[in-house]
Amino acid sequence: MSLDVYDKILMLAKRRGFIYPSYEIYGGVAGLFDYGPLGAQLKQNIENLWRSYFLLQDGCFEIHTPTMTPFEVLKASGHVDEFTDLTVDCPQCATSFKVEDITKDSRTLEEAIQADDMNCPTCGTKLINPHQVNLMFATKIGIGKTRDAFLRPETAQGIFTGFHLLYRYAREKLPFGVVQLGKGYRNEVSPRQGPLRMREFSMAEAEVFFDPSNKNHERFAFVEDNMLLLFDNEKEMKLSLKEAVEKKVIKNQALAYYMFLTQSFLLDAGVKPEKFRFRKHADDEMAHYAQECWDAELYSERFGWVECVGIADRSAYDLSSHINSSGTDMYALRRYDEPQLTKRKKIIPKMNVLGPLYMQKAGAIKEALENYVITDETDEITVEINNEPIVVSSESYEIKEVMEKEIGEKFVPHVIEPSFGIDRIIYMLLEHNYKEGIKNDEEYHLISFRPHVAPVKTGVFPLINDDKLTSVAKNIDFSLRMDGIYTVYDDAGTIGRRYARMDEIGTPYCITIDFDSLSDKKVTIRDRDTTEQKRIPIDSISTYLKDLLESKEKVRV
Amino acid sequence: MSLDVYDKILMLAKRRGFIYPSYEIYGGVAGLFDYGPLGAQLKQNIENLWRSYFLLQDGCFEIHTPTMTPFEVLKASGHVDEFTDLTVDCPQCATSFKVEDITKDSRTLEEAIQADDMNCPTCGTKLINPHQVNLMFATKIGIGKTRDAFLRPETAQGIFTGFHLLYRYAREKLPFGVVQLGKGYRNEVSPRQGPLRMREFSMAEAEVFFDPSNKNHERFAFVEDNMLLLFDNEKEMKLSLKEAVEKKVIKNQALAYYMFLTQSFLLDAGVKPEKFRFRKHADDEMAHYAQECWDAELYSERFGWVECVGIADRSAYDLSSHINSSGTDMYALRRYDEPQLTKRKKIIPKMNVLGPLYMQKAGAIKEALENYVITDETDEITVEINNEPIVVSSESYEIKEVMEKEIGEKFVPHVIEPSFGIDRIIYMLLEHNYKEGIKNDEEYHLISFRPHVAPVKTGVFPLINDDKLTSVAKNIDFSLRMDGIYTVYDDAGTIGRRYARMDEIGTPYCITIDFDSLSDKKVTIRDRDTTEQKRIPIDSISTYLKDLLESKEKVRV
Repeated sequence: MSLDVYDKILMLAKRRGFIYPSYEIYGGVAGLFDYGPLGAQLKQNIENLWRSYFLLQDGCFEIHTPTMTPFEVLKASGHVDEFTDLTVDCPQCATSFKVEDITKDSRTLEEAIQADDMNCPTCGTKLINPHQVNLMFATKIGIGKTRDAFLRPETAQGIFTGFHLLYRYAREKLPFGVVQLGKGYRNEVSPRQGPLRMREFSMAEAEVFFDPSNKNHERFAFVEDNMLLLFDNEKEMKLSLKEAVEKKVIKNQALAYYMFLTQSFLLDAGVKPEKFRFRKHADDEMAHYAQECWDAELYSERFGWVECVGIADRSAYDLSSHINSSGTDMYALRRYDEPQLTKRKKIIPKMNVLGPLYMQKAGAIKEALENYVITDETDEITVEINNEPIVVSSESYEIKEVMEKEIGEKFVPHVIEPSFGIDRIIYMLLEHNYKEGIKNDEEYHLISFRPHVAPVKTGVFPLINDDKLTSVAKNIDFSLRMDGIYTVYDDAGTIGRRYARMDEIGTPYCITIDFDSLSDKKVTIRDRDTTEQKRIPIDSISTYLKDLLESKEKVRV
Repeated sequence: MSLDVYDKILMLAKRRGFIYPSYEIYGGVAGLFDYGPLGAQLKQNIENLWRSYFLLQDGCFEIHTPTMTPFEVLKASGHVDEFTDLTVDCPQCATSFKVEDITKDSRTLEEAIQADDMNCPTCGTKLINPHQVNLMFATKIGIGKTRDAFLRPETAQGIFTGFHLLYRYAREKLPFGVVQLGKGYRNEVSPRQGPLRMREFSMAEAEVFFDPSNKNHERFAFVEDNMLLLFDNEKEMKLSLKEAVEKKVIKNQALAYYMFLTQSFLLDAGVKPEKFRFRKHADDEMAHYAQECWDAELYSERFGWVECVGIADRSAYDLSSHINSSGTDMYALRRYDEPQLTKRKKIIPKMNVLGPLYMQKAGAIKEALENYVITDETDEITVEINNEPIVVSSESYEIKEVMEKEIGEKFVPHVIEPSFGIDRIIYMLLEHNYKEGIKNDEEYHLISFRPHVAPVKTGVFPLINDDKLTSVAKNIDFSLRMDGIYTVYDDAGTIGRRYARMDEIGTPYCITIDFDSLSDKKVTIRDRDTTEQKRIPIDSISTYLKDLLESKEKVRV
């Protein structure tokens, strides 16, 4: 059986310490993966590159909120009710399957259920009992009196539940963005597709809050002529941001701007442009909170187009839900240029009537009346005191029309959300940059990571294992590391074999210390892609490398 | 009531966006905290500083393993049975308390239980039902056929369960270290002490694997004259690393070396030296896996000495447990200088006898015989084929004495573990660096973060809100950010007030653009601590700042 590129990458990824199944010594757990030394380094580089776009360049704030999330939050957000997969069971194997995984034809899930003709892919038995399964991992917080909680399905909710504090941090000006990088959890019914469908995964999400009356972006004009490849589920089209918004292919500037920021980041990370497109969600495939959604899709030889980023207009959905469920004021204020005077009907309670009538309850009734919002003018008002309705007749109060100063108008901000699946992007970077061949009669692999993304920046090799050379090489190695450059020191085997080991993990440079180095204080630096070699002075290696390691093509969005 | 420094810091931390209770809009959850924009940035700087010591300088590898951990792993590690707190219940309040929190006197937990005289701190009722409570958060993985799992109580187990892969990555040489930064979880019975006792917390752990016959450290000689402040629960003593190891105050070089690395990191992060010490664990307070343990303690005005780092010799405890429980070969190999020849008794099956006798089972029996380890020489051997015991008489085999080549001796590596509580360190950095006073009749706060740790590196201020100045200031701000420097642009209020806002969050520098800047292309840079001001050219701000932002006192360990 010949292996496809996915198999080859997973073998290489395990052998060299990028990524591999977790807890294998106990049989493994489907959907859980470890990042080995190279994978963890690669992931950190990708996340820091992401930060350079979203924090440094776009000016978003980063926060960290807990992965454990109490029930109320996810009830309000809709996840308790909506974060589900339609599932069928095999009575023979006692296993469950996502209907979506079983029906690979063009039928909708409903049509498949209707037809009632699904069979177990393992044993062939007819699948039964279609039902929705919630995909959150449940736990309980506390001892004795416990509190129901879930592991978060997305990092976004931790941003929404702190909106009022973050709005103050942003000095009450819109738009502003808040990001979170961290774990998300999804108890997949039957995880397959390896690192593309993890049960515990790494996300990077930005929630950018806009005034719904103005979803323009202040830097749109700088980028509007750039091109996006858009697929509307029927045809692909190449449009500039400006055209896409004008033709209403993309709903607003903000969405288009963040699509472009996403594209810039992905290409800078090393995604191949010809394996990249945006696909618009059909109306019936959007998440429960989304008004419009575009996926950044990357092409995989085995899996075809894979969603790696979703850029959604979540409108006011989440903040409204949390305002309603928690009763907290999480509105933003649209300030008037000048404070405005507004007429308002106000209730003036008469304490000389209320007092004798309601005794010790009079104070509470007075307060309730003052906060009562008058819609119609009626002869009586019902207020609730300690859950008891009390009808107060108009003898006990007076209604006056007053002028009140208002500094602005309250509204619920809208949210544009670019949400990145970091693990998928990492797998795709491996696949897009993987090369293989035969060298000296041996299989040979190379990953052409861009230098600023590569986990190891340079190999450091003494030409042969001689004390004079190894001591110089070890000093160079240590001093590069103290300068913040990740290295691998290697003195085993031929230089050719050491180059091959570095090529296989995508190390862009290798430094060799030879006997000339002892006298001329220079080393040979070899470039992975061109295999060109140059002599450079030992005391300038660090500066020389740092310059090469900066992303030269960084798009200033 | 006057506030102590803890109260003041928590107020400042919430107001300015460092750290605050999570999910407050739903009443909050004890033991869960959010890091706001400044807190998240501060945390990232601390973690990257930690990486510069443990990854770059010490050469450890970083990995990421899942927080969800299957039952078998934590059963083997002892956490299912031992990760508990002795707890008593209040029958009146239906609340539980850690016995340790209730008995503030010098009695041991056992004595307190014996005396049976504990009362509820809330209602005074006598506390009952002393029992051990496991502190792990439980969940289930999968749908239908589920698998029991916990949220990890420490990141370490993910390192141990992958040891065989990591040993190969390290090219089978000891010592080598593996680190993990990430979340740990502990379902505290009654979390108090705010950010010092979280239910979901951030750890940085290093597991350094040694050959037990040699716990020396190759760079010990470089650091042995440095001093450590050691407290053995009776007296404090200042000893050099060398003295401490020679006098057997610290058990081995490796422990002493990692204590010094810990001290270097903490002081570099900005911990005050006079509020720092190492305390040795008494024999009865060590975790179930530890052979010797030292805590790095930091002093807090409210809480006294607080454990922030534990540096433990875990010996072979964890690897042995996982080898026994999983049956996986996770031994290391101590290579002989020359391969050694060893006599071994070997079974040579006779196929001409086995074949006719056992037919199609003969092959399996042959293999079982070859793998059989001979202890006594007997007339028959029982092997198990497909769970069926088969007695094979000595006619079917021959026992020969053979010489075998062995390249080394297998052993279970020992582990030295420095384990850092990142959240506690962050709180302590706030407390140790907090200053207050009165300025212009107003309360004034300053946090003297070291520049490389401060969340914001520089404020960027146009002197007044004039288009000419703001456009230059915004350009400077953007270009510093594109150079990787975190800034805050601020054009609101007097310069004095803007300085005060930056001092309060520990920003080390502020840049002011005035009308002279338009002609001389220079700006004023102000130092937070000295309040000195200097004019520097606009085009050298970035280089000038980058130099100031490097840790100058970095100890090369």
